[in-house]
Amino acid sequence: MARPAPLSGFPEYLPRQRMVEQHVLDTVRQIFELHGFASIETRSVEPLDELLRKGEIDKEVYLLRRLHSAEEEPDAGLGLHYDLTVPFSRYVLQNAGSLHFPFRRYQIQKAWRGERPQEGRYREFTQADIDVIGRDTLAFHHEVEVALVMAEVFRALPGPPAVILVNNRKLIEGFFVGVGATDVGAAMRAVDKLGRAGPDAVATLLVAESGMSPLAADRCLALAAIRSADTSFGPRVRALGVSNPLVEQGLAELTAVVGAAHARMPGAVVADLGIARGLDYYTGTVYETELAGFESLGSVCSGGRYDALASDGRTTYPGVGISLGVTRLLAALVGRGLVTASRSVPSAVMVAVTDEDHRAVSELVAEKLRARSISTEVAPTAAKFGRQIKHADQRGIPFVWFPADAGDSVKDIRSGDQVPADASTWVPPDVDLRPRVLPTDDYETDDSGESTS
Amino acid sequence: MARPAPLSGFPEYLPRQRMVEQHVLDTVRQIFELHGFASIETRSVEPLDELLRKGEIDKEVYLLRRLHSAEEEPDAGLGLHYDLTVPFSRYVLQNAGSLHFPFRRYQIQKAWRGERPQEGRYREFTQADIDVIGRDTLAFHHEVEVALVMAEVFRALPGPPAVILVNNRKLIEGFFVGVGATDVGAAMRAVDKLGRAGPDAVATLLVAESGMSPLAADRCLALAAIRSADTSFGPRVRALGVSNPLVEQGLAELTAVVGAAHARMPGAVVADLGIARGLDYYTGTVYETELAGFESLGSVCSGGRYDALASDGRTTYPGVGISLGVTRLLAALVGRGLVTASRSVPSAVMVAVTDEDHRAVSELVAEKLRARSISTEVAPTAAKFGRQIKHADQRGIPFVWFPADAGDSVKDIRSGDQVPADASTWVPPDVDLRPRVLPTDDYETDDSGESTS
Repeated sequence: MARPAPLSGFPEYLPRQRMVEQHVLDTVRQIFELHGFASIETRSVEPLDELLRKGEIDKEVYLLRRLHSAEEEPDAGLGLHYDLTVPFSRYVLQNAGSLHFPFRRYQIQKAWRGERPQEGRYREFTQADIDVIGRDTLAFHHEVEVALVMAEVFRALPGPPAVILVNNRKLIEGFFVGVGATDVGAAMRAVDKLGRAGPDAVATLLVAESGMSPLAADRCLALAAIRSADTSFGPRVRALGVSNPLVEQGLAELTAVVGAAHARMPGAVVADLGIARGLDYYTGTVYETELAGFESLGSVCSGGRYDALASDGRTTYPGVGISLGVTRLLAALVGRGLVTASRSVPSAVMVAVTDEDHRAVSELVAEKLRARSISTEVAPTAAKFGRQIKHADQRGIPFVWFPADAGDSVKDIRSGDQVPADASTWVPPDVDLRPRVLPTDDYETDDSGESTS
Repeated sequence: MARPAPLSGFPEYLPRQRMVEQHVLDTVRQIFELHGFASIETRSVEPLDELLRKGEIDKEVYLLRRLHSAEEEPDAGLGLHYDLTVPFSRYVLQNAGSLHFPFRRYQIQKAWRGERPQEGRYREFTQADIDVIGRDTLAFHHEVEVALVMAEVFRALPGPPAVILVNNRKLIEGFFVGVGATDVGAAMRAVDKLGRAGPDAVATLLVAESGMSPLAADRCLALAAIRSADTSFGPRVRALGVSNPLVEQGLAELTAVVGAAHARMPGAVVADLGIARGLDYYTGTVYETELAGFESLGSVCSGGRYDALASDGRTTYPGVGISLGVTRLLAALVGRGLVTASRSVPSAVMVAVTDEDHRAVSELVAEKLRARSISTEVAPTAAKFGRQIKHADQRGIPFVWFPADAGDSVKDIRSGDQVPADASTWVPPDVDLRPRVLPTDDYETDDSGESTS
């Protein structure tokens, strides 16, 4: 067959790039678990009616069909999930009797959307979500908590600093009603376009679709322009002269989120009154996240409070969740070559093979090193030592081990230093034990550039 | 909405069951990396012609279609991969210029098949593969290596012992030709049905479809009945009186695999001359794996040597790989309730909240504990302490922390022991730091039973 081509929108990584992704996923998991979130995975497919229940994305769903299947087969009507929130709410309803509430879960999985691919927008992508979901009620403090957990994730990750932008749906809904919007949902969707379409287009939309006067639209744009890293946004909102109980309640909540975050991690969480989010199920705090220098990628971490997403008619499970777009984040870290790994294989050591008849001797050395958690491979051929060293070098393996009757030795192939060593006791320096993931500037690399698609 | 139902063939786990899966996946990854295998992931979809290139499974492929799409869209003709070998061979061809050979990779991902679901057979399932792939040539010793890596994985996993059964395609092809088969592929597929269909049905098939005489079919069944944990199978095969160069070459290779494995891990790898594997691309050693007491599940780990799976016409990339069926293995470990986790959340500690005004005090304690890698959550409400303790107990969290002006204390809620403690220095016993995964008999559990589908 001819050389296959990449598929647009379905990213794949070379091994050294994949190590960056693994590092991101490991860091995310570690911090989620430190905060007591339990892992779940949901199946990749949901019934189509469940997927469409949340509206607006129907054109983006991938449906499944068995090759040679009849239309009436049970699989007809299954689609790949396009996020992890809708499957999670289904999972909670289905397993409510076996879960303890408030239920704290994380979920790291792929999702699929049939969108037009571009940088930051993929047809297959990985999301890392945390949600806290209650039965009947969910305390407000979890709206502060999930933002701070994600702020901690960003602080631990390599790459550019991130700012989590927060707003409150009650505040902006109250404000839209207060200035005379007749269709609050339309106003929400209009403001959500601010980043892409700009203020003039949004003003036109607000007037045309939400029933506002041009003057009212201007006040909404003035609201949307307010941004502050502390709680000083309160007086600025009130100065716009639109007040009702919902605005006051939203201001109180937003003040609580930003105030608590400011006290714990100054600058990590910022009030941005222009954040709306397109989805109609959010009812309280909403989140988006800007990566410094990569604003054009769009939000790398979004979510919000939802009150009625999961309900079986008798019981409602209100929740709050936030979702890290791992693939989008990697578009910055890997796609732009900001970050790379110190080698392309896990191995810290390659054991040389003197001749094929003595391969078992080298295997035994490897076994002893592995028994002490040192990742080790054995040279694939008993070529001349120079060629074996080159094989290790190409992969970035720092140490080559030479078994010998007169006593083994190990060579640091970067410095050329070779010292006698015993496979039962020798350890590499900590810094070489595992591949490290760091800014590209710190390394010479051979495959750290563009992603393969 | 009404309570949603599980989808047959798409398994999901409760949090405590998922911990068993995570433990399996972590163990697998750790051992793969110790042996120097690098992680890659491939996209979930492949062009249909690529998926069908390997034949025989066309009815099982799930095709993708965008809701509301036109037939001529680029996504038309994409299907979900049904294994990880075919995508891997495509990845190697596509990226050959950026990889170093022999290339050692592991890949842990979901795959999909539109099969009739039953125990051990799923529509969505997780596979964990290792392969070593060369350019132009691949040394035979890798056929020993991959079996031993998987034997190490099984030794490290909880649950029943596993035996990796090996055979050699050259040996049986030579044998089939030697007894007069006119269609060797048909003979291979017939013998592959031995476990499910039994010897009488296979003898009938061999005669009807591979052109053998009934006497020849009997000799094939006699070959297939040979099984030995050491290299004593050689004389038994020769005693059947079918000899040709291919049989001799296959016997030499099988003797090398079983001999080396017997020396390194006695009993882990066993010659079974009845193993054929259905796929036509295998050319040397083939592997299947029986889980003691769960033979009816089918093989939990299979693979083989392939010489021409990946080729661009000029260069061929021969390889050998073995694939662990994680979901099938979990059908035994979790589905049959053999193994469970010591708690359903990562948290080792829950910090009690005295009253909502002092939640920040509890948050600070949690922060100090997490800074020393102790997974900690804060009580969701400032209820009476008895209720807060019950909340921890339901999740299996072993310790509850009580902040107090007069000095903090921590209670082991299993023993009731409460002692003064400082959040900057206290550590839980090692055994309680993380959830442990062990045989069910060792624990009282509340949700370790059946999987949710």
